[in-house]
Amino acid sequence: MNRAISVRSSGGKSSSKDASSSKHFSLSSLRGMNQPDLSKKLYKLIKTENNLITAYETAGRERISIATQLSEWGESTEDDAISEISDKIGVLLSELGDQEDYYAHSLDDSRGVLKAIRNTEKSVQPSRDHKHKLEEQIAKLRAKEPQSATLVTLEQELVRAEAEQLVAEAQLTNITRKKIKEAYDAEFTATIERAEKQIILARHGRRLLNLLDDTPIVPGNIRPVFEHTEQARQILNDAEDDLRDWQFDAEEVQSHGNLDAGGMRQEGTEHQQVQNVEGSIVGTEDGYRNEGVQSEIGDTRISSGQQNPGSYAPSVTGTSVTTGPIETSEVNRVA
Amino acid sequence: MNRAISVRSSGGKSSSKDASSSKHFSLSSLRGMNQPDLSKKLYKLIKTENNLITAYETAGRERISIATQLSEWGESTEDDAISEISDKIGVLLSELGDQEDYYAHSLDDSRGVLKAIRNTEKSVQPSRDHKHKLEEQIAKLRAKEPQSATLVTLEQELVRAEAEQLVAEAQLTNITRKKIKEAYDAEFTATIERAEKQIILARHGRRLLNLLDDTPIVPGNIRPVFEHTEQARQILNDAEDDLRDWQFDAEEVQSHGNLDAGGMRQEGTEHQQVQNVEGSIVGTEDGYRNEGVQSEIGDTRISSGQQNPGSYAPSVTGTSVTTGPIETSEVNRVA
Repeated sequence: MNRAISVRSSGGKSSSKDASSSKHFSLSSLRGMNQPDLSKKLYKLIKTENNLITAYETAGRERISIATQLSEWGESTEDDAISEISDKIGVLLSELGDQEDYYAHSLDDSRGVLKAIRNTEKSVQPSRDHKHKLEEQIAKLRAKEPQSATLVTLEQELVRAEAEQLVAEAQLTNITRKKIKEAYDAEFTATIERAEKQIILARHGRRLLNLLDDTPIVPGNIRPVFEHTEQARQILNDAEDDLRDWQFDAEEVQSHGNLDAGGMRQEGTEHQQVQNVEGSIVGTEDGYRNEGVQSEIGDTRISSGQQNPGSYAPSVTGTSVTTGPIETSEVNRVA
Repeated sequence: MNRAISVRSSGGKSSSKDASSSKHFSLSSLRGMNQPDLSKKLYKLIKTENNLITAYETAGRERISIATQLSEWGESTEDDAISEISDKIGVLLSELGDQEDYYAHSLDDSRGVLKAIRNTEKSVQPSRDHKHKLEEQIAKLRAKEPQSATLVTLEQELVRAEAEQLVAEAQLTNITRKKIKEAYDAEFTATIERAEKQIILARHGRRLLNLLDDTPIVPGNIRPVFEHTEQARQILNDAEDDLRDWQFDAEEVQSHGNLDAGGMRQEGTEHQQVQNVEGSIVGTEDGYRNEGVQSEIGDTRISSGQQNPGSYAPSVTGTSVTTGPIETSEVNRVA
């Protein structure tokens, strides 16, 4: 067996990694280069998530298109059994497609959570740079004019910058840990939900197939009438019931990241720079909630279809589904 | 709840369906038009399956790219806990991606089975047309020259054509029922396999997240050393064991389509046309096995990656995975 050692490409040589991921960033890689170093990797990862989400949106859309085509082909065979079974399988496939689309939206939510980390990384970089610059200025001035009055001012400024940076770094580690758990908890939970619901659909789909008699007939003989119409309908009802009764069942991912932020903010560090950092050291949700407004244009996903994944309800039913013409979502997005 | 009635677009009005699916066939729709009517719908469906398969291949590839990026980002944070957890989550995400790719290959296998139906449809059409043309000729001739000697010849030809068509229609219904069961059995089985394996991965992923302490720290404090390295490794071992022990567990879809074909072939129907139809009335596998050679160029998928889905083994491991630069599969395929 091909035993795996690490997903890192040979322990941190980023050149090969860049080669592998750069193909996704033909246009946006220039903008990526304008990101501070600290947020560059996550910036790219968030971009790549876009491609993943689009792939699932596509899968969902194509699946629903295939479902309709299968049903219509079945009707055209003028074989009652094929017609009935293909239509019902079409209903299940269409619901499988909806689940892919719903999954895409959940991944998009998880992607939004990662942006909170990236935004914090981005805002911490100037704080590091500022401190570094002050240290250099002071060293230079001390060598040239050790008695300069400016030295005192700069040293005062450095003390403030150090305080600011301590806060910024605490904010960064707090936000990073909290949000990385939150993002991947959401992603794994959505993966389990999609999987369990698709298992329900696929198992009932296999029951439908068993209603179709494929015993060969000899030339000139005709097929007996299809007698399982009611059973086929019942299978869809069962699938609908199972989807409706589905509940997420797993231990919670524990988070300790929700402490009150108030006590941690320190007087004297209320510098402009600090206020650019996430709302508080432990990270209130505000920064993330407003993120859609703050983020630059290249981040914005123009979503199609289901807008409220939270209010999702299964659409499988006792009979079958009418889908209109499938709408193409014209997603004009920077890749 | 949006109760579904049918996946057919308003009971057989094919115009709206054509509008919805035509966007997938900008180039290949011309070739589709050259298909006999009988196989046109399935021809298009099989084309659309290509888009679905490509979407899952893309999802797999992007997921693996994200896995590597996550691991490398984690390393760059210089936070031991984040580094360790992100690398292990990367391993699981990478395996999730492999499962999508494996699923794409299973869908491609299922798509291949549908081609056996389409090929039979295609070969039955000339038989229908031939019989219809003979009937017209006979009717015309009988009205014009009822004593013509050609009439006798044509009527003999019609008898042969009718016999041929009886066989062709029996082959069509036998192949259609057998293969539609086979194709969707394969598809639902693959859906269950992907789902169950991804559930294993996601549940272990959530265990990993619980090893990460996201209790906020105050500025100036440092994080305690990460003490769960062994546990994180154990979780990957558990995931690997669970994937290895996984077995498909569901009742079989019953097929009665495998009767001996010999007894059903009739002397006198061994016309060239009949031999173009699937190898026998009940459908031996030969037609399908050779299908890659027979099918026109527009059908052929240039597959990338895993060639033997049957020999698939999980690649999750006790430590982590090294992925090289992700290879772009340059799929030059007629859409």
